[in-house]
Amino acid sequence: MATTRYDVLGVGNAIVDVIARADDAFLVKHGMAKGTMALIDEPRAQAIYEAMGPAVESSGGSAANTIVGASSLGARTAFVGKVKDDQLGRAFTHDIRASGVAFDTKPAASGPSTARCYIIVTPDGERTMNTYLGAAQDLYPADIQDDAIAAAAITYLEGYLWDPPQAKEAFLKAAGIAHKNGRKVALTLSDAFCVDRYRDEFLKLIRDKTVDIVFANERELHSLYQTADFDSALSAIKGDASLAVVTRSEKGCVVVAGDKAEAIPAAPIDKVVDATGAGDLFAAGFLVGHSRGMSLRDAARLGAMAAAEVIQHVGARPEVSLKELAAKNGLKI
Amino acid sequence: MATTRYDVLGVGNAIVDVIARADDAFLVKHGMAKGTMALIDEPRAQAIYEAMGPAVESSGGSAANTIVGASSLGARTAFVGKVKDDQLGRAFTHDIRASGVAFDTKPAASGPSTARCYIIVTPDGERTMNTYLGAAQDLYPADIQDDAIAAAAITYLEGYLWDPPQAKEAFLKAAGIAHKNGRKVALTLSDAFCVDRYRDEFLKLIRDKTVDIVFANERELHSLYQTADFDSALSAIKGDASLAVVTRSEKGCVVVAGDKAEAIPAAPIDKVVDATGAGDLFAAGFLVGHSRGMSLRDAARLGAMAAAEVIQHVGARPEVSLKELAAKNGLKI
Repeated sequence: MATTRYDVLGVGNAIVDVIARADDAFLVKHGMAKGTMALIDEPRAQAIYEAMGPAVESSGGSAANTIVGASSLGARTAFVGKVKDDQLGRAFTHDIRASGVAFDTKPAASGPSTARCYIIVTPDGERTMNTYLGAAQDLYPADIQDDAIAAAAITYLEGYLWDPPQAKEAFLKAAGIAHKNGRKVALTLSDAFCVDRYRDEFLKLIRDKTVDIVFANERELHSLYQTADFDSALSAIKGDASLAVVTRSEKGCVVVAGDKAEAIPAAPIDKVVDATGAGDLFAAGFLVGHSRGMSLRDAARLGAMAAAEVIQHVGARPEVSLKELAAKNGLKI
Repeated sequence: MATTRYDVLGVGNAIVDVIARADDAFLVKHGMAKGTMALIDEPRAQAIYEAMGPAVESSGGSAANTIVGASSLGARTAFVGKVKDDQLGRAFTHDIRASGVAFDTKPAASGPSTARCYIIVTPDGERTMNTYLGAAQDLYPADIQDDAIAAAAITYLEGYLWDPPQAKEAFLKAAGIAHKNGRKVALTLSDAFCVDRYRDEFLKLIRDKTVDIVFANERELHSLYQTADFDSALSAIKGDASLAVVTRSEKGCVVVAGDKAEAIPAAPIDKVVDATGAGDLFAAGFLVGHSRGMSLRDAARLGAMAAAEVIQHVGARPEVSLKELAAKNGLKI
């Protein structure tokens, strides 16, 4: 097998987050389901933005956050996703490259503007997301470069890619190239409602081994198997996936590999300031640990540490070097 | 005298901050004078942005920050400043309006893009600013509406307005309207290098009473009177200004009124996270207190409280209701 150029390559929606604080009443008034991601069209985006308080803009996107986290942990990384050549698209591009990530997807010259996620952070730190996909809809299979995927130890794909019409084909193309080259493919289920939209397809991806590693949080797992019982859902994924990691917020995570399931506690924190990016950064830590041959337990601990960092400040990307943080926590990458 | 519609109306450069962390070596390498504001052209803006780490975007602008702070303290406020009708201009407009500030300056439809300030925050929390003025250069006297200025108890002007060529005339027009209507005019000296560029004009504004209230930090005051001795500078401004407030970071401030000078301590803080906006928010608190008839000492305490809030997080605008914070601190506005 050829040597790798990247430890992790991510494919996802390239999104700029627009983050404001509001209370639960705001969510109720505007018909938002707390803690989830809703797709919105442009008029709804305008209406939400007008109703929101003062905001800060920060690069986001689930897989993009994961890849930036992996880079911060010292991994060699690349990202594939579509922005428009506009101010927000240039900000996204700057931020991900400045994080040490190779990002060469050609921006759209025309069409809708760069994708934005309007995020409401409530006083408990939970985030509720409203995504206008914009230019992210224009990610095509042609944006997937064979040589880059072939050179990545793990290709990480977000379930959200099922939303833009052509991105699904880009997803499948990337998974095909990875496996043809003896690489691994990882998938995050992204969001419980996203699972609801594409349940059968996601189950097929897992069961036919199009993906080797599955990330899900508790709600996504319940949605996947349409059950409210955690143990049933866990044993269902145990039968379906080669390797699955189920995150459970402050209860830590469960790693399922073969017929074994191991629970790993969450990292202690002072206060959840903004939960945005928790799952993304957990995946970053786990993937880097796993790609470097750490035990599943230690990879999960690295994930828990990265998630703990990102939820203690506003924004979905790390504010400190996660590699240094890992060293301080005795986690040798 | 007609009743007022606004307690404070600000005129200033409408700017979006692009904030990243870096160490002192970055400042040295890129020829930046720590703690100051430098004007940059577009090629330099591009070069700095490329060299900067991942950033967050947040609405800024000195007088704009002050006005948002005043609004957060419960004051009736308006702002005049020029953005372009682009993504960053729309973000600036959203943020200031969402903060409860009347903002009706017509955006530029063509010409340079919305102004950006590339801010480097060093580990000690100090900020070093690089401003690309862009569309802010197109603030004209025609943007100053007589009725708005006439309806504001205090018109607050930033020294930075001396940089864009026509904004100076807009400044003088606003001051003229305010005084014709029996209102007060306040000025911040903005930055020591800005004072250096316009020393004679600033001294004339103060001496001929074009401005009634002057805000300066220690470095700006020293620059104004070209002295390294604080006491000489203080006695010089005592002779020149009707009312002056000199801020001294952690040493608090000195309020000079007539032949009296009173020192007021800074508000205690845990850690300076990002000093951006300290002076702007001090001015907000002082102006609101002063316009509501508080004693100079209490107005300064309100300023110190607002400054303390803003330097304990990233970004130059308050993250909590300053009115509620004042109530908790026993400062009745």
